[in-house]
Amino acid sequence: MLKLFQYNWQVRDDWFTWCKDVPEEELLKKRVGGVGSILYTLFHIVDVEWAWITLDLRGEQVPKHPTFEEYSSLQKVLNLSRQYRGDVEPYVRSWTSEMESKIFSENNPNGETENFKYGEIMRHVIAHEIHHIGQLSIWSRELGKKPVTANLIRRGLFDN
Amino acid sequence: MLKLFQYNWQVRDDWFTWCKDVPEEELLKKRVGGVGSILYTLFHIVDVEWAWITLDLRGEQVPKHPTFEEYSSLQKVLNLSRQYRGDVEPYVRSWTSEMESKIFSENNPNGETENFKYGEIMRHVIAHEIHHIGQLSIWSRELGKKPVTANLIRRGLFDN
Repeated sequence: MLKLFQYNWQVRDDWFTWCKDVPEEELLKKRVGGVGSILYTLFHIVDVEWAWITLDLRGEQVPKHPTFEEYSSLQKVLNLSRQYRGDVEPYVRSWTSEMESKIFSENNPNGETENFKYGEIMRHVIAHEIHHIGQLSIWSRELGKKPVTANLIRRGLFDN
Repeated sequence: MLKLFQYNWQVRDDWFTWCKDVPEEELLKKRVGGVGSILYTLFHIVDVEWAWITLDLRGEQVPKHPTFEEYSSLQKVLNLSRQYRGDVEPYVRSWTSEMESKIFSENNPNGETENFKYGEIMRHVIAHEIHHIGQLSIWSRELGKKPVTANLIRRGLFDN
């Protein structure tokens, strides 16, 4: 489980670096598909990972959920990513196979109770980020820029 | 490991169904980014999963590697996906944690030997497909069509 989270964090950081060479108006520009802009995509990835793990799986309470309007600059999203990783990473590192089948229950918007296994949510979070990063790769080529590699091999993730 | 492969296979099949409502010229049309077209993306996903697992990890020999030119219709790519899944699925189902650190070695185009852990390659294959599916979701919206959901939850993957 940890390796795929580490992959996502490394790729996400590579995209933050990629963003530094792109004018902020391009990062904020409304695009077709996904959640609509490069920076909002990165905010969304950061927010969703944190919300599932910290609010749902760990059951922490927060006074207020962040909105993109409060974080609509590269530096703010990067800072949020670092802050939230500090919350998320210890949980991912402490993951054991016994946690796989724990049940998280919530009410969906229709008022029905939905049950998810913890292992299901962890994999959902992993796939969610990789999917949105795939969208960034298209927008990158539309901007005429080479995207960050999506390769998981050759990142040193399995060196020890 | 199996759950993420099953997720990819289910999403892939959903995209094959999605394709049935799209004119083949749109499926073959050259687009910006990724490997360049919707159908070539699906072929590429199918081919890469099979090649890593069957040729590299299982070490099978084949007379000839398929090319997209031989499979450039929806039905042909769908048939190839079914055929290759028959090769790949038993391996994924037989995966055990002892296989994680086995080493696969190959020579890269520069003539240098590269070593990868089997667990690294399995996760690379998983991430590879999710990434390319993210690209399809952008092209889907450009076509004015709703993409297949990328959600891993609510697919029944963890029901038993």
